[in-house]
Amino acid sequence: MSQPIRVFVTGGTFDKEYDELRGRLYFKDTHVGEMLRLARCRLDVTTRTLMMIDSLDMKDDDRRLVVESCAACEESRIVVTHGTDTMPETARALIAAGLGAKGKTVVLTGAMIPYAFGSSDGLFNLGSALSFAQVLPPGVYVAMNGRYFAGDKVRKNRDSGTFEEG
Amino acid sequence: MSQPIRVFVTGGTFDKEYDELRGRLYFKDTHVGEMLRLARCRLDVTTRTLMMIDSLDMKDDDRRLVVESCAACEESRIVVTHGTDTMPETARALIAAGLGAKGKTVVLTGAMIPYAFGSSDGLFNLGSALSFAQVLPPGVYVAMNGRYFAGDKVRKNRDSGTFEEG
Amino acid sequence: MSQPIRVFVTGGTFDKEYDELRGRLYFKDTHVGEMLRLARCRLDVTTRTLMMIDSLDMKDDDRRLVVESCAACEESRIVVTHGTDTMPETARALIAAGLGAKGKTVVLTGAMIPYAFGSSDGLFNLGSALSFAQVLPPGVYVAMNGRYFAGDKVRKNRDSGTFEEG
Amino acid sequence: MSQPIRVFVTGGTFDKEYDELRGRLYFKDTHVGEMLRLARCRLDVTTRTLMMIDSLDMKDDDRRLVVESCAACEESRIVVTHGTDTMPETARALIAAGLGAKGKTVVLTGAMIPYAFGSSDGLFNLGSALSFAQVLPPGVYVAMNGRYFAGDKVRKNRDSGTFEEG
Repeated sequence: MSQPIRVFVTGGTFDKEYDELRGRLYFKDTHVGEMLRLARCRLDVTTRTLMMIDSLDMKDDDRRLVVESCAACEESRIVVTHGTDTMPETARALIAAGLGAKGKTVVLTGAMIPYAFGSSDGLFNLGSALSFAQVLPPGVYVAMNGRYFAGDKVRKNRDSGTFEEG
Repeated sequence: MSQPIRVFVTGGTFDKEYDELRGRLYFKDTHVGEMLRLARCRLDVTTRTLMMIDSLDMKDDDRRLVVESCAACEESRIVVTHGTDTMPETARALIAAGLGAKGKTVVLTGAMIPYAFGSSDGLFNLGSALSFAQVLPPGVYVAMNGRYFAGDKVRKNRDSGTFEEG
Repeated sequence: MSQPIRVFVTGGTFDKEYDELRGRLYFKDTHVGEMLRLARCRLDVTTRTLMMIDSLDMKDDDRRLVVESCAACEESRIVVTHGTDTMPETARALIAAGLGAKGKTVVLTGAMIPYAFGSSDGLFNLGSALSFAQVLPPGVYVAMNGRYFAGDKVRKNRDSGTFEEG
Repeated sequence: MSQPIRVFVTGGTFDKEYDELRGRLYFKDTHVGEMLRLARCRLDVTTRTLMMIDSLDMKDDDRRLVVESCAACEESRIVVTHGTDTMPETARALIAAGLGAKGKTVVLTGAMIPYAFGSSDGLFNLGSALSFAQVLPPGVYVAMNGRYFAGDKVRKNRDSGTFEEG
């Protein structure tokens, strides 16, 4: 019941921090390890940071690295932490690369509030994404707002900050 | 993809708070609603508090109320928040009552640290339980530590504070 | 022993929040009231928001409003929450206006991390500033890093993010 | 302006933690060091743990150790973290030992909510106590609820959980 799971970190709001000397948000290290400890997670999880960027800054090359990393890793169960703004684009790139047909279950997730800010949705979303990744059939999904969406039928509603089918 | 989910609250560490006048832990109201808001949850969730007790204090009558509530509610997807100490006993009571055969997916979850204490595993576990409840076939499960367990094959390891098969 | 204290809010990092729809920091309402409740503060405090701005954006007119508000209010004990970047400038404006000679004890304070982010120095600084305001003789002071500084002999070290004499 | 300050830790709610294996509150290590870091405190503070106990369990011998430690340390500015229930008793023991006459400013403080629980008054109280300790004349004081009280004219109101003159 506990298959190995790979977590690929790409950055996004999920991992943003506050730079107190410059008064702005930035990326340092991922919080995924700390979150898994706080969650008392006992899954067989291997975490690797691919990049630490805002998903609005994600370019074709970055997206290609995500796709290739998901295709190349040994695990068939994968969670990708990702900025919310272009999560659907990356999902579609993963679908275009045939990740589902390759037997991979890839679940993208992120957060609207940085984990470091104390009142984040990130911990809930990580629990949700890791759970969906264990039981959903091969394919590409987005896990946000407690729900899961097929990767080619999801969009972010920028007015409400939530994900919906479409 | 978003079926209605029922959450039954029974108390447990999950919902404990600190009584500052008496210097002890106690129960007031459940935090599930606040947690779902923090999580930006957009599932169709109806929450009902059945009791607010430590699961070590849960008696046969209490357990019967949990079973009957799960059997009687309209929803076929159910999450039960529960103290960790006797979570497996309640799972077995639900199995004995044939909840799975009745087409119900019941997922029990809880927390090792109270949500109100700021560094809780509760938010992760709630995200996990709500996700498993959406996709697992009818049956009774425990969702803890990022994993899910068949309700009749799970025990709490009191030395490590984690759940394992057995 | 509990004289009335006036708190004037001007914004600064202290009160910044995260705008989850736009992924940037902004100002909404002050957190001072919430902080005083959390602190179980039983001082006779009246809070008034003068502005909600980054202190780098504070102009002469804004600074004049701070000075006039401190001069005009009934209370002789005053705390001003303020962005850290130009706190010494406002202190000097208050000194130039002779606030100390008018019998007022004015203590400026702020934070390096927004209170809303959960790991802020703001609560400590507010406790510190309110305490210094009660016992220091008339004059203008900056309370940061647990210390207090004469308002005309303080500067922010931008490399360390701390205040020092100078 | 920055004289050396000694902090003596005695335990109390301030430093209580949640034992997740036993579901009860207990003492491990003090959080004072972590709190001073979070506060970006730049005072010359030396912290020493004298005991880690609930103040209801504080016996004459314990109280004597607090008194002797305050009398013997080199610093004339002292903060004592203490459980709230018997804080006035310890204040009176310090007065009886003539700490004020010995030129010492001793400020007792504590918390109604453990610092580890995330919504504590402890950080505010620590900021307040360290500030009062710097500027109040020799004597023994209690700093709680943003106020300071003469050590022989203070009592805890157990119904409201706040301190008042008396």
